[in-house]
Amino acid sequence: MPDSPALTTRYESLAAEVLEQIHAGTFQVGERLPSVRQISRQKGLSVTTVLQAYHLLEDRGAIEARPQSGYYVRAPLPPAPAPQSELTDLPFDPARVRIDDLVMLVVRDTLNPQLIQFGAAVPDPDLLPTARLNRILAQIARRNSRAYNTAGLPEGTLELRTQVARRAFLAGCSLAPDEIVITSGCTEALHLALRAVCKPGDLVAVESPTYFGILQILQAQGLRALEIPTRPDTGISLSALRFAIENHPVKAAVVMTNFSNPLGSCMTPDRKRDLVEMLSAAGIPLVENDIYGELAFSGQHPGVAKTYDRTGLVLLTSSFSKDISPSYRIGWLAPGRFKNDVISLKMATSMATAILPQLAIAEFLESGSYDHHLRRIRRAYAQKVGQMAHAVVRSFPEGTLVTNPQGGFVLWVQLPERVDSLDLFRRAVQAGITLAPGYLFSATPKYRNYIRLNAAYWSFSAERVLRRLGELAAETA
Amino acid sequence: MPDSPALTTRYESLAAEVLEQIHAGTFQVGERLPSVRQISRQKGLSVTTVLQAYHLLEDRGAIEARPQSGYYVRAPLPPAPAPQSELTDLPFDPARVRIDDLVMLVVRDTLNPQLIQFGAAVPDPDLLPTARLNRILAQIARRNSRAYNTAGLPEGTLELRTQVARRAFLAGCSLAPDEIVITSGCTEALHLALRAVCKPGDLVAVESPTYFGILQILQAQGLRALEIPTRPDTGISLSALRFAIENHPVKAAVVMTNFSNPLGSCMTPDRKRDLVEMLSAAGIPLVENDIYGELAFSGQHPGVAKTYDRTGLVLLTSSFSKDISPSYRIGWLAPGRFKNDVISLKMATSMATAILPQLAIAEFLESGSYDHHLRRIRRAYAQKVGQMAHAVVRSFPEGTLVTNPQGGFVLWVQLPERVDSLDLFRRAVQAGITLAPGYLFSATPKYRNYIRLNAAYWSFSAERVLRRLGELAAETA
Repeated sequence: MPDSPALTTRYESLAAEVLEQIHAGTFQVGERLPSVRQISRQKGLSVTTVLQAYHLLEDRGAIEARPQSGYYVRAPLPPAPAPQSELTDLPFDPARVRIDDLVMLVVRDTLNPQLIQFGAAVPDPDLLPTARLNRILAQIARRNSRAYNTAGLPEGTLELRTQVARRAFLAGCSLAPDEIVITSGCTEALHLALRAVCKPGDLVAVESPTYFGILQILQAQGLRALEIPTRPDTGISLSALRFAIENHPVKAAVVMTNFSNPLGSCMTPDRKRDLVEMLSAAGIPLVENDIYGELAFSGQHPGVAKTYDRTGLVLLTSSFSKDISPSYRIGWLAPGRFKNDVISLKMATSMATAILPQLAIAEFLESGSYDHHLRRIRRAYAQKVGQMAHAVVRSFPEGTLVTNPQGGFVLWVQLPERVDSLDLFRRAVQAGITLAPGYLFSATPKYRNYIRLNAAYWSFSAERVLRRLGELAAETA
Repeated sequence: MPDSPALTTRYESLAAEVLEQIHAGTFQVGERLPSVRQISRQKGLSVTTVLQAYHLLEDRGAIEARPQSGYYVRAPLPPAPAPQSELTDLPFDPARVRIDDLVMLVVRDTLNPQLIQFGAAVPDPDLLPTARLNRILAQIARRNSRAYNTAGLPEGTLELRTQVARRAFLAGCSLAPDEIVITSGCTEALHLALRAVCKPGDLVAVESPTYFGILQILQAQGLRALEIPTRPDTGISLSALRFAIENHPVKAAVVMTNFSNPLGSCMTPDRKRDLVEMLSAAGIPLVENDIYGELAFSGQHPGVAKTYDRTGLVLLTSSFSKDISPSYRIGWLAPGRFKNDVISLKMATSMATAILPQLAIAEFLESGSYDHHLRRIRRAYAQKVGQMAHAVVRSFPEGTLVTNPQGGFVLWVQLPERVDSLDLFRRAVQAGITLAPGYLFSATPKYRNYIRLNAAYWSFSAERVLRRLGELAAETA
């Protein structure tokens, strides 16, 4: 949590305190808050200070004043206007993927404690169960003085595969433990999935905008990207995808069906089924990346397209890096009919995944801690995402649009056309803030005036940081 | 340690006990052992029993009788006759790599506790510092309740890279921490090294016979292997390699310079320098795999070819899987001039390596435990390798030849031509024993009558198992 712009005034402290109580559920949506007088008396603060605090919370959209009645907790934040990708400019051209040192810059920034982390899509360390997970790891390490010190199976431990299968079942997708391969994070899962279904030079349909890690993997494997228009509300355009596979030799598609990065889109079950049926009918494998599925603000995993897979052509990937531990590097892959290829490739890539971290995560899942933990972080990210989205609208130049995702923790921001996101990125880093410039999310510069913001680090005091970012955006324009 | 063929007789027990004392250094080479009468008195055993024990040890080459004087600990086991690859049949043809399910079978066998582990080149669990390493891991996990729970740098933690640089320095090779990339085991190091210097279809010079993992990686990357004759005594033939690079478009070479798998060959410093100079002059990158270098029976790491690298064309790979932990999956790569490419590829393959296992190994190295541990296991593997080599000669059909490696823990066995190693493999598994058939070590069937044996699991009682294997070999012939 970036505390650099410290809370200095009493009314800000009070506002933060009230907001915390709202988040904690002390005051529910629609309920009346204690009166200004009550708080003034109870806290020994002047009426002016309390009023200032309430006005601040009102400004930020957390509470509302009702004449002759008092202050009330506002209903869930209304959707902000969202940027739309154009669906009209078909046909589009395949582009060979090229990415530059920008990715490396963003990654390195995430390790710089001096910078405020709006850049990479990394979880808030305060919302990771690190202490508990490390305690489990320590217990397992001490318990097993010599067992488990073998390379292990390339597909991973049965313990973890069993737990993953149980989670998949809860998400409406029946998978047996032996249909799952444990990987070194979601990156290896995506790497193996694409290696299994493509050869160099192949054309892969991806969302546009898409997670830059996908573009890196395509580039490293000599694959070409065909960028399919994708909307924040409905996800990848099925009509555009159909046009693409009818007119181009598409060999695979990579889609984040739930709370995609960067758009935050979540496909409906119907659209997921249509996606699978369209691709399967054409014999095209679908790499479905569900890394954010468990972070549904509704509390209910929205399900995966893999559920509708009848032909084994869907390769489902995910990891525990967003919700449990980025450092344990544990992901997984349900490779469908490509299982044998994936296991061979895994052996030729990293042989197997480290065993003790697998066992620790399996035990964390089995203990029931995971569900409890998910409830907590879903609530927290819902708040952070909603608040940051509203703050973006308040802080950035007129004409800025922002997404309103219902899961995950990233925002996609469309700035006025005159703003160059790379220019803004450079100025922001100078000011101690990171962000992900739009150039990262396409093989073309079509998102030059977009940025992705990580809301995981959002906090009450981050409003000032965002205001500074808004000023920089206005200056660069 | 496979205890299936249990020690049942008193004289065998006594012989094992005496051998243990020899290994522990209680009785040194050339020293006289207690007399038969002394032992008989001290142990309450009959003179006949003690004599039987001494005769058994004599048979196995551990002690010798000197007339009118008594029994003495023998000098280090003399080299057994070694098989030689033919260097005469140049030119050889490039072969596209194909490997089959055999590799998978051997890997799975290593996880079957019912089988005696002469198959895969896995270390003896009794010779891994698992308890101490896990204790360090547990301490680190508890100490850091939230620090380190980030994805981390793709090149790994500075802590471990610093320790690796120090070990390299002790092996005569000056590397800075920022010249090192931490990987998920040596497999990922080899994968990244080859990805960085080759593209699909390229021709790669490899030793023959070579570690089958290399062939798997070449196959997975669509590379072709050019197998260069290699001798157990001197390593890869430099004249054959020169011929190869002059007559074929070789894009890289992969060489295990120290205690190669399966031959056990160790190149002299002069030959290492010649190897680097020849390849560098031709602008061909050398992937040097030094995974067994620390397991030198002499106690002194024999140095690496990377030491002679003036152009950055040598990519040095290794791991801690043979001496500390196969399960932690920690390897490393010094990629020379390909560092940026390797880091980009690492990000597109697995993003980063799990952090806590890296920190645990770094602390193990820094604590000084590593040197102590290496001294212990070098001695143990020297004994096991020497004893198993002699037992092979005693147990296998007339005409069998075996290597005499001075480091590592594998033996390469040339059986009479009539023996098919795959046939023997199948019968051996039926009998509860695994071995690695020669077919695995080349893209051609030229090693059909060879097997690789893992000596790491050798023990006194394993002699019987080996005798059974010898019988099976005689039957298959």
